[in-house]
Amino acid sequence: MPDCRRIALLLEYDGYDFHGFQDQGELRTVQQVVQNALRDLSGESDLQIISSSRTDQGVHARGLVCHLDTALNVPLDRLPLALNNRLPDDVALLAAAEAPPGFHARYDAVGKIYTYRYYLSPTRPVLSRHQAPHVFGPVDLDRMREALPYLCGTHDFYAFMDQNNNPKQTTIRTIHQLDLTFDRPFLTLHVNGNGFLYHMVRILAGTVLAVGQGKIKPQDIPQILRSRDRRLAGKTMPPQGLCLETVLYPFPLFEPMEAQL
Amino acid sequence: MPDCRRIALLLEYDGYDFHGFQDQGELRTVQQVVQNALRDLSGESDLQIISSSRTDQGVHARGLVCHLDTALNVPLDRLPLALNNRLPDDVALLAAAEAPPGFHARYDAVGKIYTYRYYLSPTRPVLSRHQAPHVFGPVDLDRMREALPYLCGTHDFYAFMDQNNNPKQTTIRTIHQLDLTFDRPFLTLHVNGNGFLYHMVRILAGTVLAVGQGKIKPQDIPQILRSRDRRLAGKTMPPQGLCLETVLYPFPLFEPMEAQL
Repeated sequence: MPDCRRIALLLEYDGYDFHGFQDQGELRTVQQVVQNALRDLSGESDLQIISSSRTDQGVHARGLVCHLDTALNVPLDRLPLALNNRLPDDVALLAAAEAPPGFHARYDAVGKIYTYRYYLSPTRPVLSRHQAPHVFGPVDLDRMREALPYLCGTHDFYAFMDQNNNPKQTTIRTIHQLDLTFDRPFLTLHVNGNGFLYHMVRILAGTVLAVGQGKIKPQDIPQILRSRDRRLAGKTMPPQGLCLETVLYPFPLFEPMEAQL
Repeated sequence: MPDCRRIALLLEYDGYDFHGFQDQGELRTVQQVVQNALRDLSGESDLQIISSSRTDQGVHARGLVCHLDTALNVPLDRLPLALNNRLPDDVALLAAAEAPPGFHARYDAVGKIYTYRYYLSPTRPVLSRHQAPHVFGPVDLDRMREALPYLCGTHDFYAFMDQNNNPKQTTIRTIHQLDLTFDRPFLTLHVNGNGFLYHMVRILAGTVLAVGQGKIKPQDIPQILRSRDRRLAGKTMPPQGLCLETVLYPFPLFEPMEAQL
């Protein structure tokens, strides 16, 4: 058997038609589809991919990172083309790179950047219906921006976690940066943090929206955090607005995209 | 029977799952779907919509205008909500307005703005696969921009027309404005003209791309126009990159979107 090496993969996918990232037996998942294509290409029937993240059903990714061990002997700059020919049109390999020794896609990640997109319009989205939920009626962007500093920093985000998924471990997380950009009719919340609880970004998005709709005051956010009461935070926004943009590592993994064109 | 009035409609649709705009018997078209919803709402079984444009299969619209005569007695600012509840999720009414006397959506239009989006990347598009075709390999944006002034103005665009659709009338058209914007990985060609021949925008997009790829010289464009030879212009780009953005009239028809939020 030829030498095995560890490879890092950068994936884009449209979550609409997947039952999330993680393998679930018969259901169509990103892991299953990508793993099958890699098994097919390499002939290694036990090949497994380990992901940095497990996105939910309907959530998208523009830069999910995973790793695998394989003896596959393809130049890594040609792997995207070779694999994409075997993948369905709602998922693609953007880049592949030799991973540093001992690299682990999940344990080595020091942060992630997610975006949440809202569609602000009197009428429902059409061309973007699978990528931004409809928000009807007025929202106050200045008020929403006022709320962001209260959420930044290191906090116990217990109130911003799906309560059906009570973790045994700490619910303290650090949000490094929160921004809102508006490119009519799209309002985008950019969230950069060291890690996220289950549904946390979608609850953050619901809370920031509730502030914009006058249902929560910006200055009430510290109290909501302290309360550890899920009911005081905003609602969980639907999955299609969420996209995993970037997984951050303390070392460079892939060539910048610009260099590839 | 109550008084009939003429109404102008502003439509957005995702062309992916439609066989174009215009009614074609059994096939699913935008006209059929919107007309049926309006017939259903009004109870007028012979209601007909007359469109400014007939987009092809796969082509999108963010602002197609059409008109109809109806006795339907709904306040026009409520018509979008009422109709959108009866429309499938890939088409929506953005606005409705009382039309000026004698208004005709096609004959009164003085121009149209289309965009054509290319996806410039080493890997194929995923999230945007139905809205921008993949362009692989280097393109020279400066060269493409150099080509635009040669295409602007009033010309015989016979060489930029699908030759299976030979019109009896003039092939002279005026392009008022052509721009390229680049928001990586999306390159967008904006085309503002007084009217377009069959496939003309998609052939313009193919020609401008051929310039960027070094297959056509910018300064050869006047000769291509003069030749009236379809083979000298660029290829017809695929439909999914094309979107009808705005239909222009010499009078205001709809309230600006900003005022509606």
